[in-house]
Amino acid sequence: METTALANDSEPLDPPPDGSLLAAIDLGSNSFHLIVARVEHGEIRPVEKLAEKVQLGAGLEDDQLSAEAITRGLDCLARFGQLLGSVEPERLRIVATHTLRVAKNRREFTRPARELLGKSIDVIYGREEARLVYLGVAHTLADDAQSRLVIDIGGGSTELIVGERFEPRELESLQMGCVSYSREFFPGGGITPQRYQAAYNRARLEISYIRHRYHSGLWVDCVGSSGTLQAIEGILGQYGWCSGGIDAAGLAELEKKLLGFQSFDTLKLRGLSPQRRNVIVAGVAIAKALFDVLGITVMRTSKGALREGVIYDLMGRLSHEDVRERTINALMQRHNVDTAAAAIVERRARMLFDATRKSWGLAKTDWDLLHRAACTLDIGMAISHKHYNRHSAYLLLNADLPGFSQEEQEQLALLARTHRAKLDPSLWADFADTEVPRLLRLITLLRLAFLFKHVEQLEQLPEFSIRTGKRSLKLTFPEGWLEQHPLTAWEIEQEQVVLEKLGIKLKIL
Amino acid sequence: METTALANDSEPLDPPPDGSLLAAIDLGSNSFHLIVARVEHGEIRPVEKLAEKVQLGAGLEDDQLSAEAITRGLDCLARFGQLLGSVEPERLRIVATHTLRVAKNRREFTRPARELLGKSIDVIYGREEARLVYLGVAHTLADDAQSRLVIDIGGGSTELIVGERFEPRELESLQMGCVSYSREFFPGGGITPQRYQAAYNRARLEISYIRHRYHSGLWVDCVGSSGTLQAIEGILGQYGWCSGGIDAAGLAELEKKLLGFQSFDTLKLRGLSPQRRNVIVAGVAIAKALFDVLGITVMRTSKGALREGVIYDLMGRLSHEDVRERTINALMQRHNVDTAAAAIVERRARMLFDATRKSWGLAKTDWDLLHRAACTLDIGMAISHKHYNRHSAYLLLNADLPGFSQEEQEQLALLARTHRAKLDPSLWADFADTEVPRLLRLITLLRLAFLFKHVEQLEQLPEFSIRTGKRSLKLTFPEGWLEQHPLTAWEIEQEQVVLEKLGIKLKIL
Repeated sequence: METTALANDSEPLDPPPDGSLLAAIDLGSNSFHLIVARVEHGEIRPVEKLAEKVQLGAGLEDDQLSAEAITRGLDCLARFGQLLGSVEPERLRIVATHTLRVAKNRREFTRPARELLGKSIDVIYGREEARLVYLGVAHTLADDAQSRLVIDIGGGSTELIVGERFEPRELESLQMGCVSYSREFFPGGGITPQRYQAAYNRARLEISYIRHRYHSGLWVDCVGSSGTLQAIEGILGQYGWCSGGIDAAGLAELEKKLLGFQSFDTLKLRGLSPQRRNVIVAGVAIAKALFDVLGITVMRTSKGALREGVIYDLMGRLSHEDVRERTINALMQRHNVDTAAAAIVERRARMLFDATRKSWGLAKTDWDLLHRAACTLDIGMAISHKHYNRHSAYLLLNADLPGFSQEEQEQLALLARTHRAKLDPSLWADFADTEVPRLLRLITLLRLAFLFKHVEQLEQLPEFSIRTGKRSLKLTFPEGWLEQHPLTAWEIEQEQVVLEKLGIKLKIL
Repeated sequence: METTALANDSEPLDPPPDGSLLAAIDLGSNSFHLIVARVEHGEIRPVEKLAEKVQLGAGLEDDQLSAEAITRGLDCLARFGQLLGSVEPERLRIVATHTLRVAKNRREFTRPARELLGKSIDVIYGREEARLVYLGVAHTLADDAQSRLVIDIGGGSTELIVGERFEPRELESLQMGCVSYSREFFPGGGITPQRYQAAYNRARLEISYIRHRYHSGLWVDCVGSSGTLQAIEGILGQYGWCSGGIDAAGLAELEKKLLGFQSFDTLKLRGLSPQRRNVIVAGVAIAKALFDVLGITVMRTSKGALREGVIYDLMGRLSHEDVRERTINALMQRHNVDTAAAAIVERRARMLFDATRKSWGLAKTDWDLLHRAACTLDIGMAISHKHYNRHSAYLLLNADLPGFSQEEQEQLALLARTHRAKLDPSLWADFADTEVPRLLRLITLLRLAFLFKHVEQLEQLPEFSIRTGKRSLKLTFPEGWLEQHPLTAWEIEQEQVVLEKLGIKLKIL
């Protein structure tokens, strides 16, 4: 274990058996999507798809989600819930994107949503969204080896991915979406050439920052995902401006046509559903800017999207192909982590975890977190040895970590930040009250694992025994050992004071 | 320029001619040191050395420097100043270490100190201190190729370096020093075995974190720098416990002897100067812990130290061997900076700098800063594209950057942070009022350099002309160009609003 990458040494998983149901929900800024799929011969077959235009993003003002939007969203989830009766919680994943990323009062939505569905909501970062979109799209396309640009114009953000087959090469998420741009550039729903031009210019500007990694010289095929692009394709087809897909000329025709209307209310186009009237103009401005800046001439669309990506990713997690393990290993390599040293900490953490899991009610996911934290707690040394635990936390919080949700990154960062030195309760003040006791227990285990690693040479640490109470931890060392190792005894004494503040009594015998 | 590392394209420097004087001052926590040296045949010869036991660190309480300590320090600098009459300001460097690193009211000292000496004080980070100590020591040793461990026990921090010849391989600065440990573990000056043991244990613990990179299996020769280690060597010699240098047995004898005294006041040892009585016990505890944890059996001492390192480093800066340029290039490589893109921004920054330097009173050091910022402003992309400017700033502020002072890192971080997006005055609230106008001008130049880089393809940018007033910047484009490039025109308009808030009027013709 010391010499190779650290495998996650938790219970082995069996892939979900044939016939089991998996489900994914995508809480987008424009629409909520549900997909239920069945495993058949190890493959995934959709059995149910639902989408509702909740327009959660339209209820976002000054980064606060309105009460109406919260109600709209929860009502929709109640309806989705009726289809989830036979799906086991560990085979369901719910992800949320732009609007819940930025809403400061997001817990007013995510807490009742969790109660409703019996499963917590994973808010994911933009680049993770892009990765999952690509995964969803890639599974719907013929497996050709050509490089492709995939674009998803969402309600609050637009994802761009360049990749081949199932491997994304470039991932990007830009803060522009058809719901947010409608609100910002077309308040009240009035359409004028100036308003349209401002939306288009802003989009061009956003795209100009990433042009050098996404322009048409860098891929062969362009694929659009998302309702907006499918709607545009539908309209172009109805008018006969394109036959399948979207081309630059057709898009220009549509733009001209839209500018002939004065307001969203009066907007009428063949093939345009009434629910899309409020977002189509902004969507076209964004699409046009993408075509112009990146040099796209023609785009086909795919029905694969985020929810499909989440399902395929979930299938991987349940079958021991968890992309998060790959991410952790990549992170260790990039920051030159001493794997032998990390393995020692990880092994001690495992021993402490096994000894405490029953009385502290710890779960497999807790071990996953502890394992990943033990592997990455000193990546910050690549920045500086001074306060490296803070740098590790900064990296774990801010880096793009494929597979991880925002909350998982926050928890990893907390563990890295607190694995040594003094503790300040403000460090976990932003976590939900229901999460804190569990996190403090994991902090305790990781601190002890780290303490035993650095105080004494490894060879000198004896087999001690551990007993736990609800709020206590008793370590028994072989007779005479502590007397012979006064420094360890001394540091454990220091640690007792620290843990006391976490409400955990550390006793030594 | 696009294809290779970016050379700093500023005025060429001639190495200081024979006979010129260089000077360095080291504001340590225990002592202030001055060295004046003369250049002879391109080599450096010390002509004057002074040290005063100011014990600035003893005046530090809750990270505040006391008025008495400030006065003691300034009085000493006034005396030093009398020896600096014929040294040109650019050939003097003043560095400050631990105490001024942590003192929150440091400006109450650094501002009058600058007035007194006509030169600002560079507060340097611990690892930069270690680098300079090594440089100073390496120049005093025979040029053998053996790897060596260099240790400097200072008043507030202890530096450890492993290196060969002039190249440090490992640099570390631990927060333990003879002045700070005296205060913490021996308040009032009483000596007891328990107090001594606590100081020794704490030191062992600090060292245990770095043992794996510094233990005796990793170097051949051990060299001590600093007054404390020289004092220990002197005492051991006087008692005949060692003949030259410090060995483990001699140190144990000294420890036993010291524990026979009850207080600093009554401490009397052959070879111990009265000014050192307050710090020798803590110094021995630290030295003993270093010997025990790292497995040092014998150490020789060197008179080379921080001040000598500063002189040699200064000689390099004045002779176009500025280690900071190497640092910037290493930083670019480590974070995979696109050098071609960086070169474009840097070239535009140069054009803007040349056009404004006279009327805005900019100096060569301003160009150095602008050049280095242009090279590193997107290193944060290695963490994430989202808010990469914040990540760049975090790295520039927190990474160990050999050659840079703390303030230089803060300024670089500010420029990276502000090179795009909105500006918030809180970003420069911590800089001295006297520095802010200059920094805002540099921010303006860098923002414009970046704006022109990303808005348009490079080939499309015409030769525009620039005219400046004290608080204005007028750009004249070729006739019709802006009309043909509405997006550039539009973004410049956005930028006008931003710069207005900095008090700079941007006009476009």
